[in-house]
Amino acid sequence: MMKKIMNDSSHVVSDMLAGIAAVNPKVCYDREGEVIYRSEKRKKVGLVSGGGSGHEPAHAGYVGTGMLDAAVAGNVFASPDPARILKGIEYADSGEGVLLIIKNYSGDIMNFEMAGDLAQDMDVKVKSVIVKDDVAVKESTFSTGRRGISGTVFVHKIAGAKAEAGGSLEEVAELAQRTADNVRSFGVSLSSCILPGVGTPGFVIEDGQMELGMGIHGEPGIEKTTMKSAAEIAEIMVDKITADLNYSGRETAVMVNGLGGTPLMELYILAGEIDKQIRSRNITPVKYLVGNYMTSLEMAGASVSMLRLDDEMKEYLMAPCSTMAWKEGV
Amino acid sequence: MMKKIMNDSSHVVSDMLAGIAAVNPKVCYDREGEVIYRSEKRKKVGLVSGGGSGHEPAHAGYVGTGMLDAAVAGNVFASPDPARILKGIEYADSGEGVLLIIKNYSGDIMNFEMAGDLAQDMDVKVKSVIVKDDVAVKESTFSTGRRGISGTVFVHKIAGAKAEAGGSLEEVAELAQRTADNVRSFGVSLSSCILPGVGTPGFVIEDGQMELGMGIHGEPGIEKTTMKSAAEIAEIMVDKITADLNYSGRETAVMVNGLGGTPLMELYILAGEIDKQIRSRNITPVKYLVGNYMTSLEMAGASVSMLRLDDEMKEYLMAPCSTMAWKEGV
Repeated sequence: MMKKIMNDSSHVVSDMLAGIAAVNPKVCYDREGEVIYRSEKRKKVGLVSGGGSGHEPAHAGYVGTGMLDAAVAGNVFASPDPARILKGIEYADSGEGVLLIIKNYSGDIMNFEMAGDLAQDMDVKVKSVIVKDDVAVKESTFSTGRRGISGTVFVHKIAGAKAEAGGSLEEVAELAQRTADNVRSFGVSLSSCILPGVGTPGFVIEDGQMELGMGIHGEPGIEKTTMKSAAEIAEIMVDKITADLNYSGRETAVMVNGLGGTPLMELYILAGEIDKQIRSRNITPVKYLVGNYMTSLEMAGASVSMLRLDDEMKEYLMAPCSTMAWKEGV
Repeated sequence: MMKKIMNDSSHVVSDMLAGIAAVNPKVCYDREGEVIYRSEKRKKVGLVSGGGSGHEPAHAGYVGTGMLDAAVAGNVFASPDPARILKGIEYADSGEGVLLIIKNYSGDIMNFEMAGDLAQDMDVKVKSVIVKDDVAVKESTFSTGRRGISGTVFVHKIAGAKAEAGGSLEEVAELAQRTADNVRSFGVSLSSCILPGVGTPGFVIEDGQMELGMGIHGEPGIEKTTMKSAAEIAEIMVDKITADLNYSGRETAVMVNGLGGTPLMELYILAGEIDKQIRSRNITPVKYLVGNYMTSLEMAGASVSMLRLDDEMKEYLMAPCSTMAWKEGV
């Protein structure tokens, strides 16, 4: 059943992080902490994110100029423990304070906040922002309140650019929170995914079926339904998102994110339909990202994230950036 | 069996190209010719590539500053006809001549060369380079001689940068040919893919099996074998490539390319193993690309392309570039 390009399933995370460090000269890998951090340290507010593995390129792919200073990886779909996160904070700290960007899962909240407390005991100034962009479900298996998914990447980008530009910890944290407050996401899944250490899928989405609002760890969504067309999927996604936040008349950044097993042909088709839905609602898309930004192993499916911009968010969204997974360009 | 995010299977190509044009302000879409072309035309040598669809982001994702001027799309896994390619040439031509970059498949060769002849009849200077980087098989179902696969993207990049810098048609064609002569690739497949218009896989790779050297249209490779570890796969890939061209002591660019259904976690693991293989052979990797650059619908698997660099190739490989699929950054 399981076919993956890997070595021993018990060390996929360290093999993966070692691979990232081997091919990306701008980052280093701390194997003990499972941390990827920037090889050149600058005097600036440090940004740390992370969480369970299996969501690549999140989060290690976002370490670099204009985004994160350190990404801390847990095992697949499991939060990293506080000691690892504390290592990430130490790498990111240059004396200007550290912002933690946390996706809203109970394990992540607990571990990141504990690490933040430990760091503050060591006189590191720490603030945190919690991202809960997924409008699908109010409560979830792994979270109190909404889950954090692909919209988190916008928070990394915008807060990262603000920090790179010399913003203070308070300024960076305020802008990160504002970005988190203005982003909404919704996902659909067409297939399950297989944890390397397990080898069989934990659930099945039947032939001809899809699930609306499934989480990035396979947490239940809203409903299973018959497979819909790209146009219908786009309408559902944009309906759910715009019912939750008023984007009308506003400039908006849009991410069409693959969940790992869905090829670009399908993401481009979906992106075209999303664009039609957005324009029909008097929303102005000013930046599109289409690709794999926050995945769920080899799950087939996609999520859409829409960020309602103001001038400051837009400025830092468009600012220079050089990481493996978010690059400058179209 | 088939689960794809699409509308009608008979117009996946036009839906996809319309989606690309909707989200990328730097390109336009000609629906009649199924051509994506740069929205701002510059006075320079024009670059045209293309081929069957299903290999996204190739080729439309490479249209933009520093790479292609036009990409012509055929139906899924089918070469575009000469009339479409001629349209692409017309969009790319600014009076300085046009270079056609063709992957070595019989249909593409025939159609691109016919279009080139038609363009020359209209007094457009045309040259072409044929890429045959896949070392797996000497002859193939769809080609006389070796197939062209992911290494083609290096030719787009380097020739595109040379053209952007003002190179003449002769200079751009010479550098493109030199790049094609110095790139080798090898792929492995873990699963089949499903043509949207067919709905069922044309072949099956059994549980626990993989195929070495399969083509990007599912053409037979060298052998089916039991599923191997990432380290073993990397050794086979680099063995096959370095047996064909001597990279020892040379600076080399390396692409670790996903075939569509393989997530980044696995590509990063493979990239780490490829790096070990390369360094153990006294080869110096100076640039890595890891991601989906030339795919085969939702096929699981990966190919590796290695480009042996000289100073000029390296200069243009590293030159600025802004497209959807090849961006500046790490």
